[in-house]
Amino acid sequence: MTSPPLHPDTAPFAFMLGTWRGRGDGSYPTIDDFGYTEEITIGHVGKPFLAYSQKTKHAETGQPLHAESGYWRFPAPGRVELVIAHPTGLLESLSGTVQLIDDGANIELTCPDVVTTATAVDVERTVRRFRFDGDSVSYDLAMAAVGQPLTHHLAATLHRVGD
Amino acid sequence: MTSPPLHPDTAPFAFMLGTWRGRGDGSYPTIDDFGYTEEITIGHVGKPFLAYSQKTKHAETGQPLHAESGYWRFPAPGRVELVIAHPTGLLESLSGTVQLIDDGANIELTCPDVVTTATAVDVERTVRRFRFDGDSVSYDLAMAAVGQPLTHHLAATLHRVGD
Repeated sequence: MTSPPLHPDTAPFAFMLGTWRGRGDGSYPTIDDFGYTEEITIGHVGKPFLAYSQKTKHAETGQPLHAESGYWRFPAPGRVELVIAHPTGLLESLSGTVQLIDDGANIELTCPDVVTTATAVDVERTVRRFRFDGDSVSYDLAMAAVGQPLTHHLAATLHRVGD
Repeated sequence: MTSPPLHPDTAPFAFMLGTWRGRGDGSYPTIDDFGYTEEITIGHVGKPFLAYSQKTKHAETGQPLHAESGYWRFPAPGRVELVIAHPTGLLESLSGTVQLIDDGANIELTCPDVVTTATAVDVERTVRRFRFDGDSVSYDLAMAAVGQPLTHHLAATLHRVGD
């Protein structure tokens, strides 16, 4: 199957495409620290968005921990949107800035108002930062949740392992 | 790779699992009618949710049309939640009822307040109905959008083609 060409809106972000694997660490004032392995997949179908999904597993037990899926949008130069659904019943509509660097970018996104289903845990807002740099990507995620102020939660570094 | 057993919350809904393919028809007062082909995938990792994704293509040209991805949750008997992200910058938090039938279910879900990014089209609310019946699933979707009241938009029937 031949891939279609990238849409002009996504073409500047071809460095994001692929399958990425790595390791991260999680913490939050209300839980024990934990380590995890992660796989992120970013793909496209020639339309003006990139499809995004990730899965994590516990670093020691290998048990599935988190997953999320959604879409990246690049509505204007320097601007980025990311919509994500979580199996825990959360929805994030993130928006922010993207600053291109050589073969990569610094991306900063905020979701001021996380949507939760009636039975989901109470997450209020999130801040996500990504640094794509060649064949590696690092991110960190902070959240205000369960009565805590905006607090660091996750940080990970992954490497591209395939298209 | 061996699949883990279904989580007790999702075990009653094993009939939803698999890859489904079929055809649908779309209409809305503001656009021309259109036909589409669709593939839906519903899977699990042994946790209390089912992962959901779908893609549609134009029935005549084969060009990709829509996609969406998210998660099904079954928080209490007879209750269902579905969170979905769209590449058009929409997020739906749907909740409703599931009525089990012989080897299937009738599911009715509403999203009273669709979340949109700053650059997304204006969709206000959605109603989705699914009927899983053995190896077939039919759904219809109505939406209030771009100033129109709640109006039928999509209907499709798909058949299970694989696990």
